Amino acid sequence: MLSPVALTEAFERVTDYWSPKVIGRVNDQLLKAAKLKGEFVWHAHEGEDELFYIVKGALRIDFEDGPVHLAEGEFLTVPRGVRHNPVAEEECWVMLIEPASTKHTGEEITARTRSLEDQLS
Amino acid sequence: MLSPVALTEAFERVTDYWSPKVIGRVNDQLLKAAKLKGEFVWHAHEGEDELFYIVKGALRIDFEDGPVHLAEGEFLTVPRGVRHNPVAEEECWVMLIEPASTKHTGEEITARTRSLEDQLS
Repeated sequence: MLSPVALTEAFERVTDYWSPKVIGRVNDQLLKAAKLKGEFVWHAHEGEDELFYIVKGALRIDFEDGPVHLAEGEFLTVPRGVRHNPVAEEECWVMLIEPASTKHTGEEITARTRSLEDQLS
Repeated sequence: MLSPVALTEAFERVTDYWSPKVIGRVNDQLLKAAKLKGEFVWHAHEGEDELFYIVKGALRIDFEDGPVHLAEGEFLTVPRGVRHNPVAEEECWVMLIEPASTKHTGEEITARTRSLEDQLS
């Protein structure tokens, strides 16, 4: 029997900032829960769009042509190849939708980079 | 500049039950807003998983081996090929995530069947 996932409860598994956990899947796309606080790192995903849906709080995403502000309950798709940097002034809960092939920080490898294996644990 | 979509406001475009409207896209998947009330029609999508996320209200999805009850804030992925029938006792708002190739009622064509063109209008 199939089991529903309660979106906010799924965030209980997320213990570290900038360390997404896979909470669902539809076709080749993974749904991930992430808690963000502070500034991340500039990067792009060359082959993958990435959707941000704000479950709690607010998020700014900096782009090369300026910032976009996301409020709770809003979503935005960052198109493939577009450099971006998420910045959360306060703790923010985000559901990400992106393909399994997406590298966490694109081609930028930093101490914050998480492998898909990390995200599935 | 990219523009965020407010999920609940996107439902203002939806005027008819069982008539989803496309509100976003990530990779090859469409995000759709749908208002449901009553019983739909038994069908399967042979090649596509379909995710139901309950934005408002509650939804029962009948499967051949029994019903699954979805509360507000919960999501469920119906795997490809699995026959299902959504039933909303009261009005329910659902965000669907499924590929552009998904046929609304699978191979069952009924008066309720909506084309992708209808869903993009």
